[in-house]
Amino acid sequence: MLRTPMIVVNFKAYRESLGKKAIELAKIAEEVSRELNVSIAVAPQATDIRLVASSVSIPVFAQAVDSTTIGALTGHVTIESIKDAGAVGTLINHSERRVQISLISEVVKASRELNLTTIVCADTPEVTAAVAALNPDFVAIEPPELIGTGIPVSKAKPEVVTNSLDKVKSVNSKSKVICGAGITTGDDVRAALRLGTVGVLLASGVVKAKDPKKVLTEMGNALIGKT
Amino acid sequence: MLRTPMIVVNFKAYRESLGKKAIELAKIAEEVSRELNVSIAVAPQATDIRLVASSVSIPVFAQAVDSTTIGALTGHVTIESIKDAGAVGTLINHSERRVQISLISEVVKASRELNLTTIVCADTPEVTAAVAALNPDFVAIEPPELIGTGIPVSKAKPEVVTNSLDKVKSVNSKSKVICGAGITTGDDVRAALRLGTVGVLLASGVVKAKDPKKVLTEMGNALIGKT
Amino acid sequence: MLRTPMIVVNFKAYRESLGKKAIELAKIAEEVSRELNVSIAVAPQATDIRLVASSVSIPVFAQAVDSTTIGALTGHVTIESIKDAGAVGTLINHSERRVQISLISEVVKASRELNLTTIVCADTPEVTAAVAALNPDFVAIEPPELIGTGIPVSKAKPEVVTNSLDKVKSVNSKSKVICGAGITTGDDVRAALRLGTVGVLLASGVVKAKDPKKVLTEMGNALIGKT
Amino acid sequence: MLRTPMIVVNFKAYRESLGKKAIELAKIAEEVSRELNVSIAVAPQATDIRLVASSVSIPVFAQAVDSTTIGALTGHVTIESIKDAGAVGTLINHSERRVQISLISEVVKASRELNLTTIVCADTPEVTAAVAALNPDFVAIEPPELIGTGIPVSKAKPEVVTNSLDKVKSVNSKSKVICGAGITTGDDVRAALRLGTVGVLLASGVVKAKDPKKVLTEMGNALIGKT
Repeated sequence: MLRTPMIVVNFKAYRESLGKKAIELAKIAEEVSRELNVSIAVAPQATDIRLVASSVSIPVFAQAVDSTTIGALTGHVTIESIKDAGAVGTLINHSERRVQISLISEVVKASRELNLTTIVCADTPEVTAAVAALNPDFVAIEPPELIGTGIPVSKAKPEVVTNSLDKVKSVNSKSKVICGAGITTGDDVRAALRLGTVGVLLASGVVKAKDPKKVLTEMGNALIGKT
Repeated sequence: MLRTPMIVVNFKAYRESLGKKAIELAKIAEEVSRELNVSIAVAPQATDIRLVASSVSIPVFAQAVDSTTIGALTGHVTIESIKDAGAVGTLINHSERRVQISLISEVVKASRELNLTTIVCADTPEVTAAVAALNPDFVAIEPPELIGTGIPVSKAKPEVVTNSLDKVKSVNSKSKVICGAGITTGDDVRAALRLGTVGVLLASGVVKAKDPKKVLTEMGNALIGKT
Repeated sequence: MLRTPMIVVNFKAYRESLGKKAIELAKIAEEVSRELNVSIAVAPQATDIRLVASSVSIPVFAQAVDSTTIGALTGHVTIESIKDAGAVGTLINHSERRVQISLISEVVKASRELNLTTIVCADTPEVTAAVAALNPDFVAIEPPELIGTGIPVSKAKPEVVTNSLDKVKSVNSKSKVICGAGITTGDDVRAALRLGTVGVLLASGVVKAKDPKKVLTEMGNALIGKT
Repeated sequence: MLRTPMIVVNFKAYRESLGKKAIELAKIAEEVSRELNVSIAVAPQATDIRLVASSVSIPVFAQAVDSTTIGALTGHVTIESIKDAGAVGTLINHSERRVQISLISEVVKASRELNLTTIVCADTPEVTAAVAALNPDFVAIEPPELIGTGIPVSKAKPEVVTNSLDKVKSVNSKSKVICGAGITTGDDVRAALRLGTVGVLLASGVVKAKDPKKVLTEMGNALIGKT
């Protein structure tokens, strides 16, 4: 299980975070994590999971899995395969890869059995409640319309975050909530924590930053209450 | 909103329930509904909704909707179109048409605004809890492996039904639970009610019965506690 | 089989072409078809096919089908159901409802057996060739980026249309080509025919027109070479 | 481009071909390839591509790609990522991962630009023709009902293979055809070549064999006409 509060950096399919650059970026995250003693996880592309997981000691997540079974499946990213590659868990149901509710349920169950951590994404407070009922480790609320905009959900739509927190709590007292979409500064992270989340999920704010280390350091400081 | 306890007959894409035969079968359901004063709803194919809805006075459901918006969508069954055609609500997320959690959420919301009733299908107790969190009118628990087998979930897997009831209750006190899969006799209906559901969702047990009226009458009697 | 040259009006899921308005619009298309003796077909939503097909004598198409089989399928628009409802054929693979190549193949085969006409949509010249190899009655080339823009493919990207014609011809001498996207005037229709197509597929240009009859009449005249 | 005739071993998501075992199996394939001087390629899971590609010198394929673009995509296996990981090409549209025709077209185009080889799977002769029109390097005909059965398509349904060859030829003289489904012996490979294909696509016949080296050697000998 991840230590909280935390920052999860989704590498998406950006050129800036592929292959060798995935290692470089993961090493930067590892440095900041070590220097500030804060919890930072990274989620590279499927083909880079093993490479990144063998290069750094911070937690590595898959961006999604397609199946919780093994066997006669072609072209599926299976949960067994991401574990074998060194991932400690997986994102699932990101707005760029929505899946059926039954698969989310299976992924949460299988992850528990395999000792993997789940971060289930949701686009609205209602959906956070629904996925919280499946008992994942984390629920990530991300209004899709803010993803990639630089307009942080924690500031632009604080009520989406607080409603999500309330709804998740009413359904499942154990699932923790992080928020994402538009997070690019330490201030955005601070706002997210102030609302009651245990961290943030972000991508371009770090991956496409001119100086990813500077941005992550600023966010890491915000995470531990330093200004 | 449907009166409970109730029987929902899913016409699926059977030849025995298409077009003219959809009307015949709906009229049989209407007769039994009237004769026994029991609540029976039918769910014909999209192309038959208007035909059936204009032929009988019992509630008519869509089997699924693809979208809650209108406009530049080709080949989508929209929620506006099924309402316009006379449906009083819709099934959604049947195991033969699983959808993403966000669509289920949107369908429940849009149905409330349009005064339509939602029956959200789920394959496991965990998933019943998840969809119950979306606040639909009904949750239908159906283990896919029993669908069409004639082995009733209410007898073969009573714990799936009772677990679903417990989980739904813990998440949402308002959503009612029905169960499906393998229901073919009055006894199966009786078992379903005894477990605490407010009715059954079935298909082949009635649609492909030699004498649908006899089967529905038997089930209707079971529904109102007659032997 | 449709008489060519022709105009196919896709009703999509517009409010302006739902239910009663679907009948009104289909009747306008029928009037123009009769007055000018031109071939016009309409493609209403699934729930409106029977209503429209029983109200007019011009050809009625489905916008898509989900399955070519019957039986234990919930929430699928089947090819049997659209035929039963009075459709003479179906669109398939519209950019707003892309499907797998195997389903396109099955729909073309099943349509032939059921004496239905197929219009397979494609987004590029390469894809027109691929679907032409399946031997449909018509291939409709529609660059998705022009759909709904009012910028006609026949003028903005004539080479897309002519390349499609060349590629289709090289693969299958029998499939005919129509084009769509951005068609709103008689001039656009004229341009489409001049390039070598046998007609146009359009939607908003007619459905959302202030005076659909005027627009369709203008297009109908263009179709038969009148100015 | 692969040297033909060839054997392509799809590792699927079998436990017997994951992680370390993927390397072992790929090394066996490499040994046989070297010993007999025959062309053998392997297609491990996405998370194993880099591992396998860096361990052997035979061609490594992806089992599928989800996208041909890069950027804000989460949980997609992109064509850039498999190339970066060392794949020389990709399977696409396997019956266990059917995709839309437009994606197949984009994958073929992007592969050409990236100097990657494409093997497009198809389930019927009609579909082989359709995908051949997209100009891939190879078309693999695999009747899904024979996959994993041990009943070889080359013997059980030779007409499916020969029809595919005829249809592909009529559409595209450059695409080469391989066949798959049920291939487990050297005899099956021999039958495949005799029908006119340039090789076979197989999975369990090798991956789940008691002695994969023995089976691959037998098949390799068949490939070069040795008994």
